[in-house]
Amino acid sequence: MIITKPNIGSLSMQKWVTYLDDHKSQFTNELLDFLRIPSISALSEHSGDVERAAQWVADRMTVAGIEGVRVLPTEEHQVVYGEWLHGGDRPTVMIYGHYDTQPVDPLTLWSQPPFEPTIKEGRVYARGASDDKGNMLVTILAVEALLQTEGKLPVNLKFFFEGQEEISSPGLQGFLAANRDLLACDMVVSADGLQWDEDHPALLLGMKGSCFLEIDVLGPRNDLHSGLYGGAIQNPIHALAQILSSMRDPDGRVLVRGFYDDVISPSEEERADTAAIPFDVDSYKEEVGVRAIYGEPGYSTLERTWLRPTLEVNGIWGGFQGEGLKTVLPSQAHAKISCRLVQNQDPAKIVDLIATHIEEHTPPGVKVTVRPMSSGTPAYVIPANHPGNEAARAVLESLYGRPPYHCRLGGTLPVAPLFLKELSAYTVTLGFGLQDEGAHSFNEFFRLSNFELGQKAYCQLLERLGEGP
Amino acid sequence: MIITKPNIGSLSMQKWVTYLDDHKSQFTNELLDFLRIPSISALSEHSGDVERAAQWVADRMTVAGIEGVRVLPTEEHQVVYGEWLHGGDRPTVMIYGHYDTQPVDPLTLWSQPPFEPTIKEGRVYARGASDDKGNMLVTILAVEALLQTEGKLPVNLKFFFEGQEEISSPGLQGFLAANRDLLACDMVVSADGLQWDEDHPALLLGMKGSCFLEIDVLGPRNDLHSGLYGGAIQNPIHALAQILSSMRDPDGRVLVRGFYDDVISPSEEERADTAAIPFDVDSYKEEVGVRAIYGEPGYSTLERTWLRPTLEVNGIWGGFQGEGLKTVLPSQAHAKISCRLVQNQDPAKIVDLIATHIEEHTPPGVKVTVRPMSSGTPAYVIPANHPGNEAARAVLESLYGRPPYHCRLGGTLPVAPLFLKELSAYTVTLGFGLQDEGAHSFNEFFRLSNFELGQKAYCQLLERLGEGP
Repeated sequence: MIITKPNIGSLSMQKWVTYLDDHKSQFTNELLDFLRIPSISALSEHSGDVERAAQWVADRMTVAGIEGVRVLPTEEHQVVYGEWLHGGDRPTVMIYGHYDTQPVDPLTLWSQPPFEPTIKEGRVYARGASDDKGNMLVTILAVEALLQTEGKLPVNLKFFFEGQEEISSPGLQGFLAANRDLLACDMVVSADGLQWDEDHPALLLGMKGSCFLEIDVLGPRNDLHSGLYGGAIQNPIHALAQILSSMRDPDGRVLVRGFYDDVISPSEEERADTAAIPFDVDSYKEEVGVRAIYGEPGYSTLERTWLRPTLEVNGIWGGFQGEGLKTVLPSQAHAKISCRLVQNQDPAKIVDLIATHIEEHTPPGVKVTVRPMSSGTPAYVIPANHPGNEAARAVLESLYGRPPYHCRLGGTLPVAPLFLKELSAYTVTLGFGLQDEGAHSFNEFFRLSNFELGQKAYCQLLERLGEGP
Repeated sequence: MIITKPNIGSLSMQKWVTYLDDHKSQFTNELLDFLRIPSISALSEHSGDVERAAQWVADRMTVAGIEGVRVLPTEEHQVVYGEWLHGGDRPTVMIYGHYDTQPVDPLTLWSQPPFEPTIKEGRVYARGASDDKGNMLVTILAVEALLQTEGKLPVNLKFFFEGQEEISSPGLQGFLAANRDLLACDMVVSADGLQWDEDHPALLLGMKGSCFLEIDVLGPRNDLHSGLYGGAIQNPIHALAQILSSMRDPDGRVLVRGFYDDVISPSEEERADTAAIPFDVDSYKEEVGVRAIYGEPGYSTLERTWLRPTLEVNGIWGGFQGEGLKTVLPSQAHAKISCRLVQNQDPAKIVDLIATHIEEHTPPGVKVTVRPMSSGTPAYVIPANHPGNEAARAVLESLYGRPPYHCRLGGTLPVAPLFLKELSAYTVTLGFGLQDEGAHSFNEFFRLSNFELGQKAYCQLLERLGEGP
């Protein structure tokens, strides 16, 4: 794809372009090696694999010529750090990515084992291919190309690769606070990001915050016979259904008292940026596989996902789930909930509001406990004219032949607000995933064309950042 | 226990009493053998075990001296039939029981493997011990004692043991219709029953009907990232919670339109029978392990479970249920529902009403299908003065020293209304389970004292029935 872009010609003058092209198949094989490590951060039985992935990353960084590479402990999975600090008074840029992956269940939906990567039609299929192993490896390879061909980098560079992004980075708050000097930088560039589609680049100007909780509804001591006790004992599943129903109105507007109190409504600029992006509801419905869209009245689909806070049940279970009949009145029922939050909402306060709501809506006869699943993440926004965004915009325009859309994201990158708070550094996002690549779902893949495009983009970005504003 | 009853003395004159006492440990060992067969009718991987249990029963019947024993196919699991028809013009009684069991999950709650029976403090612990293997084996042993000591039985006798009671006997309607002559009888006596407690006998005068259905809520084609799609796509779990909540008011009264239309309100006699039974709400709460009871206003706890129709969710599942976080907006959510029905409610009509209700309460953006899980069972009632009940009452009074309570049951015995319809025979219930024995739950057990008491009760009952009204 890259060679069809008209204004890409000047790139071919660069020695690192040749280096990247010459090492294409080696780099692809290395990506496959990286993808074979089942580094699922959420599952304790995979913690050894998460460590193995950290070591793989550290080793690959050292091979690339990155200095001071070390694997550092946090309260959760490790951080892999590295640096190249011979850029004098050039800016210090810290590259961010994550080497952990989402879980893979339900496994039955995968066309292949998720940790046995397969290349088909220019795509590499594996859990973590797009989110985020493919994207983060890009940055190491780009830096290698620069170091091997130029002998130096255009900026001072640090690397920060974490292994707990998919579990909301619970260990990073403490780690950043304790390592402010080591990590000091002028900006962060995150390789955990998306472009709009194959032909349209995007700048990411905001990400939602999040909070997570689990609800446990406890009824009778044991499962009971639904005939012998039905109608006389509160059923925990009914109680849970009642609680969950009370949390949203039929349009998905959250009914938890105070949920919207601190919300800053979308600005004119945010709404205009969003409206400027072509969005076809019919293809969206077809892509997702639903007959009707849905959501808070008065907002478009993109506004709902990018600019409005949400509450979703991620999982529910209780009673008999097997084949056939088992007519129990169950002892327990459970649900997992996540909220996506916008600017100015405090995740801890939202969890408290939900806990209060649940308490007020718990029917008699059951005991309900609410467990926050992490300390949560506030929303994150970066000014469109931040120097890092200006550089990324120029790179994307040169690679794609058109300016990037100004996008926001319903997803959360927990570390971005932490970098801002602890290091006073904004996080610019430059990643080459696409929305159809099955991140957090099954048959995840990454386009090899974007794997290569990304390497060239990072070389260009570092050069531009080295030129200063 | 039996020897402490004052008016039991006359029993010791009977030769079959000695026979039963002499064979106590052999019979207990045979019960353990029977309980080792994991005859779970709901799970197809156990269908071989269900067949094995049928053969075990047939073999044991033959050893007992029962004639014409055969294992007969139905559309579902087999029926074991046997007979002794040399009673001339004495009435023909058909003994009923079931050799299948409930599933055992969650296995973690059991103190021992459920199919490795263990005797502790006069109780035998195993799945099926109380419901119904212990109770049904009682009847074969009683008949053996009569045949071995008297050389004959006081009535014409048939046996009908099924292997599909725990899945609502889907194959019996057709089987009974096709075998009316073979099964013709004056009455059925069911060994699948309970006494009130260790000291108080009970006559069972009614059982609820039932119907079962599964609800499948289908949303997006695949699980989606809750950040990228949350708020814009209907969440199947929320939709299901909304549907389930719409089905009952906070007191458990069913809100499905038409659900109560055909209900005949409890009669004065039924309410008086129920009110005559001592019932302590505090011990009930303690036994079940809840802080508050619950249910339809205007009815007592016993009336709610015995005389009023109910709707309960038996199981629910959807999305991520594992450890930690997986922030999906799930593709599907599911629930299993059972209703317990009273006299004059038609199970098929109730399923239709629920399906209509669900259709009317399905929010946009999801597709919901409703699958009936069986053809359902109507409620069953037997007159208190049926000759079988008169005989059972006399036996219970002689064994316990007090007249039985007149009880109803929230549970369902699907075959009882079928026997009435196809054979014009009422089913009298005489079983020796107790409510605390964990039927349909974990750590199920049966009291060996009742295993022995039951054998003597059945000998007495057959003698009384042989005397005629």
